[in-house]
Amino acid sequence: MNKERVETFSDGVFAIAITLLVLTIAQPTDYRSLGHELADKWPSLAAYVVSFLVIGIMWLNHHTIFSHLERLDRGLFYLNLVLLMTIVFIPYPTEVFGTALQKGQDARTAAVFYGAVMAVNASIWVGLWLYASLGRRLLEPDFPESERRTATVLFIAGSFVYISSIGLALISPYVFLAFQAALAAYYALDPISRRVRR
Amino acid sequence: MNKERVETFSDGVFAIAITLLVLTIAQPTDYRSLGHELADKWPSLAAYVVSFLVIGIMWLNHHTIFSHLERLDRGLFYLNLVLLMTIVFIPYPTEVFGTALQKGQDARTAAVFYGAVMAVNASIWVGLWLYASLGRRLLEPDFPESERRTATVLFIAGSFVYISSIGLALISPYVFLAFQAALAAYYALDPISRRVRR
Amino acid sequence: MNKERVETFSDGVFAIAITLLVLTIAQPTDYRSLGHELADKWPSLAAYVVSFLVIGIMWLNHHTIFSHLERLDRGLFYLNLVLLMTIVFIPYPTEVFGTALQKGQDARTAAVFYGAVMAVNASIWVGLWLYASLGRRLLEPDFPESERRTATVLFIAGSFVYISSIGLALISPYVFLAFQAALAAYYALDPISRRVRR
Amino acid sequence: MNKERVETFSDGVFAIAITLLVLTIAQPTDYRSLGHELADKWPSLAAYVVSFLVIGIMWLNHHTIFSHLERLDRGLFYLNLVLLMTIVFIPYPTEVFGTALQKGQDARTAAVFYGAVMAVNASIWVGLWLYASLGRRLLEPDFPESERRTATVLFIAGSFVYISSIGLALISPYVFLAFQAALAAYYALDPISRRVRR
Repeated sequence: MNKERVETFSDGVFAIAITLLVLTIAQPTDYRSLGHELADKWPSLAAYVVSFLVIGIMWLNHHTIFSHLERLDRGLFYLNLVLLMTIVFIPYPTEVFGTALQKGQDARTAAVFYGAVMAVNASIWVGLWLYASLGRRLLEPDFPESERRTATVLFIAGSFVYISSIGLALISPYVFLAFQAALAAYYALDPISRRVRR
Repeated sequence: MNKERVETFSDGVFAIAITLLVLTIAQPTDYRSLGHELADKWPSLAAYVVSFLVIGIMWLNHHTIFSHLERLDRGLFYLNLVLLMTIVFIPYPTEVFGTALQKGQDARTAAVFYGAVMAVNASIWVGLWLYASLGRRLLEPDFPESERRTATVLFIAGSFVYISSIGLALISPYVFLAFQAALAAYYALDPISRRVRR
Repeated sequence: MNKERVETFSDGVFAIAITLLVLTIAQPTDYRSLGHELADKWPSLAAYVVSFLVIGIMWLNHHTIFSHLERLDRGLFYLNLVLLMTIVFIPYPTEVFGTALQKGQDARTAAVFYGAVMAVNASIWVGLWLYASLGRRLLEPDFPESERRTATVLFIAGSFVYISSIGLALISPYVFLAFQAALAAYYALDPISRRVRR
Repeated sequence: MNKERVETFSDGVFAIAITLLVLTIAQPTDYRSLGHELADKWPSLAAYVVSFLVIGIMWLNHHTIFSHLERLDRGLFYLNLVLLMTIVFIPYPTEVFGTALQKGQDARTAAVFYGAVMAVNASIWVGLWLYASLGRRLLEPDFPESERRTATVLFIAGSFVYISSIGLALISPYVFLAFQAALAAYYALDPISRRVRR
């Protein structure tokens, strides 16, 4: 199992998924009041920005984890494939969430849907990390044991935060959106990949 | 004929085709009952999942075969191009199949169409493998002869399974969908690429 | 100017353009007579196949030419960018042509449009080749002079064939489509990249 | 932070964003007067050409800057991610601008929107360059000090030109479009990457 080709394939999938996000912002329909139409689309733009940062940070995370793997096996390949499947899916709830906020119709349901997709994704990250790191199965030998434990705690805590955020979605979709942006900022400032460094 | 650039090009096509699958799930049209709309779309989601795993496993297969080729020639390049043409096409029957299941209209036809595309694809895999391996034309010298025979049998058997599965599509599109998922799981657990190892 | 990164960027653009072709085949609208709807779409499928092979063969051509360049300069970069611009555009006339054939409305205009895009593309190939090869400006030193002349003749002849094929489009769009397929087959069997070999 | 993988990821995003531009040209709706329909779409085609060249030149710029960086840090990664976010967004205002010009409805607003996106993008380029070059933080040691100053002046001047061009959009969207094309030509002929050479 050639690690480099799996990384390149994954990078390609990340790059395409992040770029397809632009298709989630619907084109204006009435060009006679274009300014208003565009201004009304701010929720779609906000959802685009949040999802873009989320996928970008996930890419960095993926890159960091794989750089600490000594080798890949078949199980990790399939976990990675399922992980990619949830990342490729992100443009779908992004469009649903942005559109629902804009229409002001059932935005709570859309936020719960977005949150649920993110929670599933976070759980698969946990599974992938545990699969690779439990008993140091696939980790490179010089990866410090203390950092392995820290990363495990952070991954599991992160998945609980994502699952809990679904509760926020039920209270207010706008607060939920802001929280997702804050989560992205937190991971950007203090991510696993900072703690887990060579 | 630079083998590495053909692999990189093919990897790119695989990565884009697998990512475009997300566009096969239609956006909701009525946001006032968003929960119901999303729940009703489960067949599109199921078709997405099956096709995603199928393309991911095909990528692994492609990767394995090419890693055992000593060189490429013009004929293999064109067989590979035709193979990619059928893989790039997969999002189309995926969307047709998911939508037909959801609408409950003519889902048998949609399943037969999906199965036919998969059967054509499986036949081109057989053609590509035979072209490369008959008389060991393009295989690397240290590829074991016994594994060459096993792989040939598995490829041909696989294409017959895919062709036969069209019969299932005529009986029940849901059973057909489950069978396609099971086939993907089988290839994930016991694929050619496991048997054909260095 | 790093030749390898320009090649990788171009490869990526080729891979995406060829994959986006699948979006040129419109989804069925009436699922109650799905079989008929799908069968009626054969012109879109035929246009997809022809354009897929054309872009695949262009990729091979591009790969061959660049492998014989000693270096790139700014002018070649921009000619390459304009070339990519016409290749990325190909899905547009492909969809127009397939749809017009299927509707049986103004298919001659659509064929002329498709042919015109191909003729512009062929002319830019000539320009890129002449820019790189005239006075052997960017060619690698050991590229045989006789092959340089052959390639120049073939490129110019090819562009005339593509320009002339617009005449066929005026006579019959179906004959034109068949001719484009035959041209792709000709280039597959006896392309410049076969003659221009190390 | 592996510089090469960030470059490859960015290259992929550039390649996909530039290719998605083809989707900004709407398919004809009435095939009975296809010639007229296609001819009326010239503003969408012009917007496609301008945006294609702009993204292509940005890719070259990106490539040049990164080739002079000794290393990446987390801050540069996130600035690069935000830069990519604005580049991936370009197809959206391109489609809006082309469609508004074609419809002849509120084209000034569309031009201002396009110009504003370009101005934001240009400002992020300035931020990225200053972040990397101030105090020579991330520049390679042998990058000449005089060229660093020249590049800084050119980047800042460029962002002012892009911001000012929004004024042109208010006067005439057609003049604005021509000016954007001229700007692209200027950067193609005399770009930062020419001045900033090894």
